[in-house]
Amino acid sequence: MPPVNRLENLEAIVQQFKELDETMTHYSDMLSLAGWDQQVMAPPKGKSYFSKVRGTLSTELFRLATSDQIGELLNALSRPEVQQQLDAATKAAVRERKRSYDKDKKIPEKLHKDFTIHTANARTVWEEARKENHFEKFRPTLERTVELVRQYSELYGYEKHPYDALLDDYEPGLTVEQLDRIFGTLRERTVQLLERIRHSPQQPRHAFEGAFDVSQQEKFNLHIIPLLGYDLDAGRLDVTAHPFAITMNVGDVRITTRYFENDPKGSLFATIHETGHAIYEQGVNAEYEGSVISSGVSLGIHESQSRFLENMVGRSEAFWERYFGDYKSFFPGKFENLSVRDFYRSVNIVAPTFIRVEADEVTYNLHIMIRYELEKGLVAGELEVKDLPRLWNEKMREYLGVEPPTDTLGVLQDVHWAYGAFGYFPTYTLGNLYSAQIRKTILKQFPDFYDIIRRGQFSVIREWLRENIHQHGSVYTPSELIERVTGEPLNPDYLVEYFEEKYSDVYGL
Amino acid sequence: MPPVNRLENLEAIVQQFKELDETMTHYSDMLSLAGWDQQVMAPPKGKSYFSKVRGTLSTELFRLATSDQIGELLNALSRPEVQQQLDAATKAAVRERKRSYDKDKKIPEKLHKDFTIHTANARTVWEEARKENHFEKFRPTLERTVELVRQYSELYGYEKHPYDALLDDYEPGLTVEQLDRIFGTLRERTVQLLERIRHSPQQPRHAFEGAFDVSQQEKFNLHIIPLLGYDLDAGRLDVTAHPFAITMNVGDVRITTRYFENDPKGSLFATIHETGHAIYEQGVNAEYEGSVISSGVSLGIHESQSRFLENMVGRSEAFWERYFGDYKSFFPGKFENLSVRDFYRSVNIVAPTFIRVEADEVTYNLHIMIRYELEKGLVAGELEVKDLPRLWNEKMREYLGVEPPTDTLGVLQDVHWAYGAFGYFPTYTLGNLYSAQIRKTILKQFPDFYDIIRRGQFSVIREWLRENIHQHGSVYTPSELIERVTGEPLNPDYLVEYFEEKYSDVYGL
Repeated sequence: MPPVNRLENLEAIVQQFKELDETMTHYSDMLSLAGWDQQVMAPPKGKSYFSKVRGTLSTELFRLATSDQIGELLNALSRPEVQQQLDAATKAAVRERKRSYDKDKKIPEKLHKDFTIHTANARTVWEEARKENHFEKFRPTLERTVELVRQYSELYGYEKHPYDALLDDYEPGLTVEQLDRIFGTLRERTVQLLERIRHSPQQPRHAFEGAFDVSQQEKFNLHIIPLLGYDLDAGRLDVTAHPFAITMNVGDVRITTRYFENDPKGSLFATIHETGHAIYEQGVNAEYEGSVISSGVSLGIHESQSRFLENMVGRSEAFWERYFGDYKSFFPGKFENLSVRDFYRSVNIVAPTFIRVEADEVTYNLHIMIRYELEKGLVAGELEVKDLPRLWNEKMREYLGVEPPTDTLGVLQDVHWAYGAFGYFPTYTLGNLYSAQIRKTILKQFPDFYDIIRRGQFSVIREWLRENIHQHGSVYTPSELIERVTGEPLNPDYLVEYFEEKYSDVYGL
Repeated sequence: MPPVNRLENLEAIVQQFKELDETMTHYSDMLSLAGWDQQVMAPPKGKSYFSKVRGTLSTELFRLATSDQIGELLNALSRPEVQQQLDAATKAAVRERKRSYDKDKKIPEKLHKDFTIHTANARTVWEEARKENHFEKFRPTLERTVELVRQYSELYGYEKHPYDALLDDYEPGLTVEQLDRIFGTLRERTVQLLERIRHSPQQPRHAFEGAFDVSQQEKFNLHIIPLLGYDLDAGRLDVTAHPFAITMNVGDVRITTRYFENDPKGSLFATIHETGHAIYEQGVNAEYEGSVISSGVSLGIHESQSRFLENMVGRSEAFWERYFGDYKSFFPGKFENLSVRDFYRSVNIVAPTFIRVEADEVTYNLHIMIRYELEKGLVAGELEVKDLPRLWNEKMREYLGVEPPTDTLGVLQDVHWAYGAFGYFPTYTLGNLYSAQIRKTILKQFPDFYDIIRRGQFSVIREWLRENIHQHGSVYTPSELIERVTGEPLNPDYLVEYFEEKYSDVYGL
């Protein structure tokens, strides 16, 4: 490594760093492709082999990401006098790679491998336990996962709470201290609002009755998502058991959804949700291609884009004033004598559910809080895995007023713990909070926001999102970005305000 | 590297070799997946980026394959006293890896990279030139390709002819000397047969008239390919511009085909052809998974399996005696008043075509010979690229009696030269020769071969192929395999015999 004291040396170092950044990005892209293929295309007998192939590539990527070579480059490029000379994109790439490097270097290769193998197997165990409604079957595996996750937390290190070390993996800089404060306010005001909703005499009626042809559902999805800004020449819509969005590169961002004949609503909003993720990734500046910064900056910001599109646009009255006619035309004989307003109210029914992914936007965050509290307790060693089913049900009764009849509908419903993804759940609520704050800013910029949607001119909003959020990829940190866009740090009041405004209308409060 | 003088050392060395073999196989599998995805699934705007991703992985694989580590292991494992102690599978894996290693080591990384980049671009140039019927546009690119290919040939080294060095890449051990002899006989007897066919008064009539619904064509394909032994739980059938088969692993061998409303025959036999490739790969012993030997041993042997299924089974009278009824039922109103015999004769019409992939099985090898002679001359420096269009047309007139009206229908028709794949074409004819020789052996083992097919019991034949050929993957070299299976080395007489027998019947000679 030559000393960084002359410009030509700096250029050589930047060049070397960019090449490594690109190589690592290519490995990640290939892993994304393999993951997508396993879930969407691979025939049943070929799936398990590709887990091994992914393991090989993932190990190789871990080695690259923790190599002495990248370490030396990152150190050289992190020196203050060097930082001053870097452009914003390079600086951000160095920041992102260094963050991972510093964390990864703390994890012995043995632990990394143990964790990878354990969680790969854990997923199968979890699937069986969920199917058989048999928590005890999953318990020993989950205990081991918690053990490993706690080792990660100790090795990563933290200032105040062991869970902080994990949160940082999913939303850089996020802490228990912040979350406790935010969730405290949010929970209190959500519970009050739910109380008023529950007692409203103006309960909306269900609009979806009978069977909805699946191929028509798909056709409507393909009709609506380009209108929301999804470029089908740079993406695909496929079918999987669980909807997701995944990026191969800026020119190839794929989404999936699922269809149920008797629940067209679920599929429709899941599709719009994934579209929100996808237009974020499709909107990243193409110049960042091949770098770690060519993707959205954090799970929280990502979720803000999907939830904004799903809930604040897709479940708005203005949206359906524009598109209800289109929607009806795909399902002749349905929704006869139903007004747009009644349809709009129907897609915003608030009611407690056992399953998080089926929750309305108001109760949704309560599901997250339950998971947050439980995993925080597990990581701190204050709770034991064996007590989870009981604690889960107690919290469900306390927060949502319902208790799941089975663990399949309760503590076993989500895949995250099987993956070992502790610290992930809070980013969902963070996304909701960010989206409300961004909506507030948009309303200031476009006081006629809902008229724009009503006129089917969502592209105007999408351009604004691209300009202010999407194009930047990971150039700004989540907190930098939210301050840049909205002029202030995360403020949970906007979500509560949005809820109160919208549901006062839907429920005539 | 510890000395290989004690059993535990040998075991450690074998273990290290197996790990590297597996890692390299995983890289190849991932490259296969990326290649498949680019052609079948990737949206238009995402295709070019993945060429870069493949470049990164391919470079990494080249590094692994030429590393000192693998070199030392291969040397240790190639010593005669060590070889004796290895099981057949390990020995074969060492043989295959060493063959590539010895060749790759002769190529400087710079040349490898130049060749990779040049041929990636050449493909685009060729596509445009073909579209515009403009050979001159492709000429400079092809000249550079020939230059690079000749460098490879010199670096690889050869005993007699520079083209031998390239042939060996596609069919280990194959030489110009052998090919000249084989092609000499084959050409002479083919031309004689064609003469008799041309003058036969019993010319079969075309059976396919009008439009054939594409979705029905696809349904028939999905009906017939499992009956031929293709396991759809370990594969997929998709649509691409050019049909191909590709292996991810033994449990995932995918095929593609294409459909034309006015040419159901082309699609049907292309699908059966790719099915032949696929059942070879699906039939490899699953214990070889993750090793270089888990794939078919050579292009020639591979092509024997696809051509056997396509021509000797799929275009046999017995096959249609069993399945013509099924086929008709997918296309109501078609083939009315057409006998099985007339249908059979129709799918075996012999007539010169401009395009190789549309050729019948008799004229097909003449197309190959033209390419063989031209590329042999280019590699030897006896021909110049600029003369190709003229030479091509002259040879077409001489061998097939027709002259393509445009270069698009002539010298520009195939992608192989754009890829830099010189030495590939002869393996197609080799496949035809092998398939006839294997058919002869099958007829000895199963004198009621055609009755078996007539009864729809192809699985009996498929089991025999699996037992004798497929399961072995690359354990035996092509020449070992053909001798093991048929009891003698490659003998071109069987193909001519088969032609004479079959076409005496079809054309009443």
